[in-house]
Amino acid sequence: MRNIRLTISYDGTDFHGWQIQPLVPTVQGLVGEAIASLTGRETSLHGSGRTDAGVHALNQVANFHTECAIPVSNLVTALNHLLPSAIRIKSAEEVDEKFHSRYNATAKTYHYRLLLSPFCSPFLSRFVWHYPFSLDCQEMVRAAGLFAGTRDFTSFAAAESCAQDAVDGLPASGVRTVFSSRLIWREKRQMLLYAVRGNGFLHHMVRNIVGTLVEIGRGKMAVEDIPAILAARDRRLAGPTAPASGLCLVSVEYQTAV
Amino acid sequence: MRNIRLTISYDGTDFHGWQIQPLVPTVQGLVGEAIASLTGRETSLHGSGRTDAGVHALNQVANFHTECAIPVSNLVTALNHLLPSAIRIKSAEEVDEKFHSRYNATAKTYHYRLLLSPFCSPFLSRFVWHYPFSLDCQEMVRAAGLFAGTRDFTSFAAAESCAQDAVDGLPASGVRTVFSSRLIWREKRQMLLYAVRGNGFLHHMVRNIVGTLVEIGRGKMAVEDIPAILAARDRRLAGPTAPASGLCLVSVEYQTAV
Repeated sequence: MRNIRLTISYDGTDFHGWQIQPLVPTVQGLVGEAIASLTGRETSLHGSGRTDAGVHALNQVANFHTECAIPVSNLVTALNHLLPSAIRIKSAEEVDEKFHSRYNATAKTYHYRLLLSPFCSPFLSRFVWHYPFSLDCQEMVRAAGLFAGTRDFTSFAAAESCAQDAVDGLPASGVRTVFSSRLIWREKRQMLLYAVRGNGFLHHMVRNIVGTLVEIGRGKMAVEDIPAILAARDRRLAGPTAPASGLCLVSVEYQTAV
Repeated sequence: MRNIRLTISYDGTDFHGWQIQPLVPTVQGLVGEAIASLTGRETSLHGSGRTDAGVHALNQVANFHTECAIPVSNLVTALNHLLPSAIRIKSAEEVDEKFHSRYNATAKTYHYRLLLSPFCSPFLSRFVWHYPFSLDCQEMVRAAGLFAGTRDFTSFAAAESCAQDAVDGLPASGVRTVFSSRLIWREKRQMLLYAVRGNGFLHHMVRNIVGTLVEIGRGKMAVEDIPAILAARDRRLAGPTAPASGLCLVSVEYQTAV
């Protein structure tokens, strides 16, 4: 049985997230259908993690098992032919049969884009959170740094998930390690880019961190509040969930080259 | 009666073109509705010209008359609040009551983007024609230059329009003046950019020129065929119509500053 690893890009705007659901278009559903149509057999497509409705991916990783002998380069062409242009298979590789895109992931990087200019181009609006109001970016940059480290992020997880729902393949707890957490101000584009890399992320965690950073930028919360919010393990203390449109899964890392 | 000139950007992918039509979303229809909802009165919104379904605009110009006293800066904010994010009013100005966005236009510039790389990012696919095949770009660049000048472009007009249907406000003939016509190869992006500026354009004219350039790039037509195709005034001799997605109305010029 061959194990095929796919790298997938998608504009998540028009999909109901990664995870397959009945009656609505999802990325996992559409890629899974394309694979079934090509190989003649239903198969499980394992993603590195779910992305929510409206969230994008530059390099989502997924794998599936197949007995189909199609060469991987033909597989890329054939799947892209079957998929809408908003979902593109960037590459396919044959990997060790034990490789699992979710359980073997060692790090993920997300970017979140906040556009502060008064005008948001229609060519950009699907990929940013347009926030045309004044923000104290210096305070936000300082706050962003505080999310690095191994911490219990329960306060930043979707309330309904209760940190039990390990969407990222890590143990069902609120503890995650954030390797780096940086907010960058791009003056020319009037864009705030939040770049975060960690061993895994709770449901809504990046969007809730961004929502909290914006509260700090607005002066509604203080940088000094962050340690107490983390310690409380209480979702109600953090800021609101930032819109999905600004979020993009940039890369997924694995320990060994495949 | 005030005469208001709007500059409008749109991602045309999800609209049935500029011109208002019953039952389907069009840019003119949606902007017109937003104006009516704001001013409390139906009004005619005059565009500089129609764009087809799927064609984009960076700076479409339109004007309308109103007795509503709302300041122009508030008008921009209010209209954008009512419109989908795929349509943005960039600016509004009060202009001379005789100004007409179509009849007073002296030049228009269109850009057409052809992506030649094997992979087309889902973040770009709405705004290009993805053509992942080999093309002789040098020959295409040479051909592109031949479209400059005052010529009868009937061979490059949509057949059904018979050059009678003056969509651009110019007299109902096939004669137009193309001030500049250039194809630029952007190596790093693997992108061909066709930039054309003229006093007006027949229906499908830019897309039919691009379709013809691609036939030349494929070796199916020769640069030397262009003069005869123009002279024949026969749509059947030119290449096929290139897809709408690659086309964008970049600017509309007027003789006098408003």
